[in-house]
Amino acid sequence: MDIKKNKDGICIDNFKASGLKIGNQGVALIVNDDLCKSVGVFTRNNVKAAHILLDRKKLESGIQAIIVNSGNANCCTKNALNDAEKMCEIAAEELGMDPDNVAVASTGIIGKELDIEVIGKLIREAGKNLSEAGSHLAAEAIMTTDTLPKEISLEFKGIKIGGIAKGAGMIAPNMATMLCFLTTNANLGREELQDALAKSIENSFNMLSIDGDMSTNDTVLLLSNESFDCKAEDFEVVLDYATMVLAKMLAKDGESSTKFIEVEVSGAVDNETARRGAKAVVSSNLVKAAVYGENPNWGRIVSSLGSVMELNFEKTDIEFQSERGKAVAVKRGKVNDLKKVEKILKGKEIRILVDLNSGKARATAFGCDLTPRYVKLNAEYN
Amino acid sequence: MDIKKNKDGICIDNFKASGLKIGNQGVALIVNDDLCKSVGVFTRNNVKAAHILLDRKKLESGIQAIIVNSGNANCCTKNALNDAEKMCEIAAEELGMDPDNVAVASTGIIGKELDIEVIGKLIREAGKNLSEAGSHLAAEAIMTTDTLPKEISLEFKGIKIGGIAKGAGMIAPNMATMLCFLTTNANLGREELQDALAKSIENSFNMLSIDGDMSTNDTVLLLSNESFDCKAEDFEVVLDYATMVLAKMLAKDGESSTKFIEVEVSGAVDNETARRGAKAVVSSNLVKAAVYGENPNWGRIVSSLGSVMELNFEKTDIEFQSERGKAVAVKRGKVNDLKKVEKILKGKEIRILVDLNSGKARATAFGCDLTPRYVKLNAEYN
Repeated sequence: MDIKKNKDGICIDNFKASGLKIGNQGVALIVNDDLCKSVGVFTRNNVKAAHILLDRKKLESGIQAIIVNSGNANCCTKNALNDAEKMCEIAAEELGMDPDNVAVASTGIIGKELDIEVIGKLIREAGKNLSEAGSHLAAEAIMTTDTLPKEISLEFKGIKIGGIAKGAGMIAPNMATMLCFLTTNANLGREELQDALAKSIENSFNMLSIDGDMSTNDTVLLLSNESFDCKAEDFEVVLDYATMVLAKMLAKDGESSTKFIEVEVSGAVDNETARRGAKAVVSSNLVKAAVYGENPNWGRIVSSLGSVMELNFEKTDIEFQSERGKAVAVKRGKVNDLKKVEKILKGKEIRILVDLNSGKARATAFGCDLTPRYVKLNAEYN
Repeated sequence: MDIKKNKDGICIDNFKASGLKIGNQGVALIVNDDLCKSVGVFTRNNVKAAHILLDRKKLESGIQAIIVNSGNANCCTKNALNDAEKMCEIAAEELGMDPDNVAVASTGIIGKELDIEVIGKLIREAGKNLSEAGSHLAAEAIMTTDTLPKEISLEFKGIKIGGIAKGAGMIAPNMATMLCFLTTNANLGREELQDALAKSIENSFNMLSIDGDMSTNDTVLLLSNESFDCKAEDFEVVLDYATMVLAKMLAKDGESSTKFIEVEVSGAVDNETARRGAKAVVSSNLVKAAVYGENPNWGRIVSSLGSVMELNFEKTDIEFQSERGKAVAVKRGKVNDLKKVEKILKGKEIRILVDLNSGKARATAFGCDLTPRYVKLNAEYN
């Protein structure tokens, strides 16, 4: 596929961005000259951060700016809804636009009152520093326990998609403590955009598991400046590519992880079984700990598959791949010499391929290993 | 309740036991003079160890002995079924009984061929050392990553129940890599015994989560010598007490854990919601890591509840208890000073009480904290 990689990050066309941090409080701002056609997908957690309640209403009327804060989830506090509205108002005032056209998002710790004084100051500062080269600063400003900013800028048949994302912890199948903001020039209907985004997320962010915990704040917003006429199917190609790359970036930067894990389950009787199986393996603490320890414990893979599906072990193949090559651990239920698997596991990007040899459905899930440092980090994070 | 604690372990009445280990391979034997009325409950994992396939058939005709090996799960290997049968045959020969009346169970690593030479030798040795004081040796012999043997012996209105169990890792809601053997004198019908056992396990072992992984080997067997006539309801009282005490012993000895965690969800609209909520909190890696770090991060409790139920945070109370006292963290959605919660968390046995104030249902789940040592242990275990 002829997908071009650009350097604009989220600042495709006329989009501008900025971002800054004081201590662990950050603010990012993404702005367009005009109202954008906007859609979003949000966490399925029944406890939802304040920004999600606001954004849902605002999306219909169109969004011109997104204001994001990191370090505080603005969730489960007395003033959460007020503070989220206040963030929009401050940004709107600074940018000279209607607060109804400013979307908001938050990421960080749950249940601490937001310091609206500090955040307000950061928002005003961000408003003064908007630039077409600001994507990287925005991507950095939304980081919490991330170690690297996540940015992408793609072009395919004239369709542009820019994006930034943050991830790290509390990432379970069905979104994550993740935020992702996408911009595009694709001139499509709202329903087409919404459908494309929802489908795209099913196979990318919703197949991502860092620690099995589902966050209250997960948000993906997509803004289109509607400047380029295109086919929905072409848009979907580049959108799927973008969300997949970003999802893998999140997995690779999973909290305190040392290895990326990709699990592909093929030969399943149906898609749902393949998805469930791939997610079960990539979410298993024991599989994740084994990968960390470079330990070819395929039994834990079989056990986690068996916990969510009918499994015929006599038909099952399990192969390991990494930069170090590939090795079959189990072929039709027979165990190979595992010395070679141990070598594969010394790589940094581990693929586990399970073929159930029972059908044609296939699914892939992403994640990372479980490390002693992960536990230490999350024992102390507040 | 007037439940008496005896010192016999599993050796109530005429039951005998023995156990021994060579390296990490162990064997335990539990024997009665006559055939026992026998029932069992097994893992819901679709991948099942060989012993489960055998035992299911044998239970109907009655069991006189149970042979158990630790260190090898005897699951997903070429000879698994043969080896399980062989274990029964060797024990039957040594004890002079029919192999059809010998039940078998295994716990340990999945997918490694069992060394039937070594296990056979241990079985014969165990057969020669049976005694009415052998319960403790049997409890020790079935340990894998357990640090303490788990034994119980209770008496209530003449009804006796003895039991041994092993747990440690791969323990998810819906049984565990756990084995539990129970003996009783209760003269009840097979259906009464089976119903009582199934119900009892729902609220004890099935509310236990060490690491969210469901094992292929989980087995609870109950043998009755039928020597004491009693009411089923009285039997249930003491059985529920026994399985609850054993489940808590398993939680307290969770792999590399430093703290026991009990989560009670009350005020739920129905039992299923209460159960789901309690299990979600006790299974959350982030909650477990926070407890390890003595970090009053109630936001993770709310988030994990919200991932499995409709939650009205404004109605929710969260209280922490331990040997150090008790402290309310959240009252009707308002956050208290958390300094006192920090002190409570310095205890070893942490209770988290969530009142949803939305109904009358209540459920309790058990588990332990997640520690850096857990990850190290499971990175290396093989």
